[in-house]
Amino acid sequence: MSSKPVIALTMGDPAGVGPEICLRAAGDADVLARCTPVLMGDAGIFREVARRLQHQCPARVVSLQDLSAGQRPEEPAICPVSALPVADIQPGRVQKVCGQASFQYIETAIRLAMGGRVAAVVTAPINKEALSLAGIGYPGHTEIFADLTQTPRSCMLLADDAISCSFVTTHTAYTKAPAAISTQRVLDVIELTAAAMTRMRGRPPRIVVCGLNPHAGEHGLFGDEEGRCIEPAIAAARDKGLTVEGPLPPDAAFIPQVRARTDLYICMYHDQGHIPFKMLAFDTGVNITLGLSIVRTSVDHGTAFDIAWQGKASPSSMKQAIRYGVMLGGTGR
Amino acid sequence: MSSKPVIALTMGDPAGVGPEICLRAAGDADVLARCTPVLMGDAGIFREVARRLQHQCPARVVSLQDLSAGQRPEEPAICPVSALPVADIQPGRVQKVCGQASFQYIETAIRLAMGGRVAAVVTAPINKEALSLAGIGYPGHTEIFADLTQTPRSCMLLADDAISCSFVTTHTAYTKAPAAISTQRVLDVIELTAAAMTRMRGRPPRIVVCGLNPHAGEHGLFGDEEGRCIEPAIAAARDKGLTVEGPLPPDAAFIPQVRARTDLYICMYHDQGHIPFKMLAFDTGVNITLGLSIVRTSVDHGTAFDIAWQGKASPSSMKQAIRYGVMLGGTGR
Repeated sequence: MSSKPVIALTMGDPAGVGPEICLRAAGDADVLARCTPVLMGDAGIFREVARRLQHQCPARVVSLQDLSAGQRPEEPAICPVSALPVADIQPGRVQKVCGQASFQYIETAIRLAMGGRVAAVVTAPINKEALSLAGIGYPGHTEIFADLTQTPRSCMLLADDAISCSFVTTHTAYTKAPAAISTQRVLDVIELTAAAMTRMRGRPPRIVVCGLNPHAGEHGLFGDEEGRCIEPAIAAARDKGLTVEGPLPPDAAFIPQVRARTDLYICMYHDQGHIPFKMLAFDTGVNITLGLSIVRTSVDHGTAFDIAWQGKASPSSMKQAIRYGVMLGGTGR
Repeated sequence: MSSKPVIALTMGDPAGVGPEICLRAAGDADVLARCTPVLMGDAGIFREVARRLQHQCPARVVSLQDLSAGQRPEEPAICPVSALPVADIQPGRVQKVCGQASFQYIETAIRLAMGGRVAAVVTAPINKEALSLAGIGYPGHTEIFADLTQTPRSCMLLADDAISCSFVTTHTAYTKAPAAISTQRVLDVIELTAAAMTRMRGRPPRIVVCGLNPHAGEHGLFGDEEGRCIEPAIAAARDKGLTVEGPLPPDAAFIPQVRARTDLYICMYHDQGHIPFKMLAFDTGVNITLGLSIVRTSVDHGTAFDIAWQGKASPSSMKQAIRYGVMLGGTGR
């Protein structure tokens, strides 16, 4: 019997680049050396995309019932969760049925992971508009995982060899981020991420916490969140023995000299960390949800509707996400 | 008589790195080949810093009266605007007298430029806390220049060979930026910057406009400023014949592939543009105030109190700011 962990790859939005990057990862020698991938999605879509791109498609199909009952595939397999009318699905289009189906893949994979049937869930990108059309109100994967696993405190970590950022707030309108920043939340994010980074790298990270305001508020001249929420959280984290610098002016935090002494950035809002992260790790970045009772990693790119089903999407981020998933899933949480 | 333009360098906060970068620029062969710098500041401070760093100091002193009356120095000179008690000034400390003095330098240089006595004003960094202690309420240089020259519409441009960004809002608390974003303001910034870039580069820029919200609001899911303010401004700019892409998701805008096709970014708030700009142009960036009746360029770094008067500050940004000042001051506005 194989000792390799079984990893669930969710197909993401069927009309995006998810199907092809799952197929490419499932045929990758490095991926297959680390794990047995099970593609959670739609067999018809996988076969259609494979046909169009002249790419191989796993021949093995494993039913959800068999997986749930404890069957462990020994080779890459498809687990059919939906049966979409393939001829009606248009690549690159926001479609309600795709939003609905992409949510089902995630829900199913989470159930398998919570039952211990897969070691980790690695997700391909979903489309939030399609989810919304299907009446599913979650703004992103992170929130779905937190809710379905009943996780009280979680956060998003973007990880790469070049830079790692975790987030106090993520998929929220610009104007709504400040209300979600509290001392407790900043401290939670510092602690969750420090613990994960220590597990992954074998030593505690050197952490930089960014301010919220330009110049980190310049001592209260441009906003008071630094003094009111962020500085007390840094003090509390230091009391717990963590190595924390900040709050730094956000534009000074990411210059090369500071990056050289920093393992982990704590970012107050989505673009504060996503802008520098994507500049440095566009193709290779991995998105990890921390604080869950299961392991979840993800590609760090969107559905890329403009190039969907064309064979142009890079599988690098998916392959990297699988590596992180195996690493975290194999060593406990 | 020399045909080189006379450029005013304001010393900035006396306790910061301003004095030393002005001195180093005034002794730089490339700077002297382009212009005659006049150092607006405090002769005692310049001499004390020069003595500590064993750097040369311009021997020539020109009075404000003589400059105002039309005298044109033919070699680097100091124009004394304040007479601070040098022994009491502590490098690296926020001091009320320094805030007061740094404002006087700017005020004086603006007057000279408006009278046509200098071709451009190039500013060293000021400290906003020191300004505030001195009862001066401006949040930054840009606002001082706009107000004292009675400029109805102006904006900040950060310029470098690697990346250029202009700003719809700048020195304002995170929470206060959205209220300052309107269709007219976004259009003003696009037009002001497109005109300046065309002048500097000899061809119209390819412009990317960033969204405000994560994923540029994902069609209204995370905020509505894109549809309400930014898209109408882009449409109006295109109607005027400008080449404009956007609103792009901020984290996608700055990846290498997009940078390669972009001459100019229109950014909605300070850190949206400052984070990528400082990552790419930390030492060489120039800050330009557009829309004024005079030419003003500046270094793109702060007072760096931690290394003030130690000879460690790089003069690269100051030298680059002088080059841009000469370029804009010599070719009209």
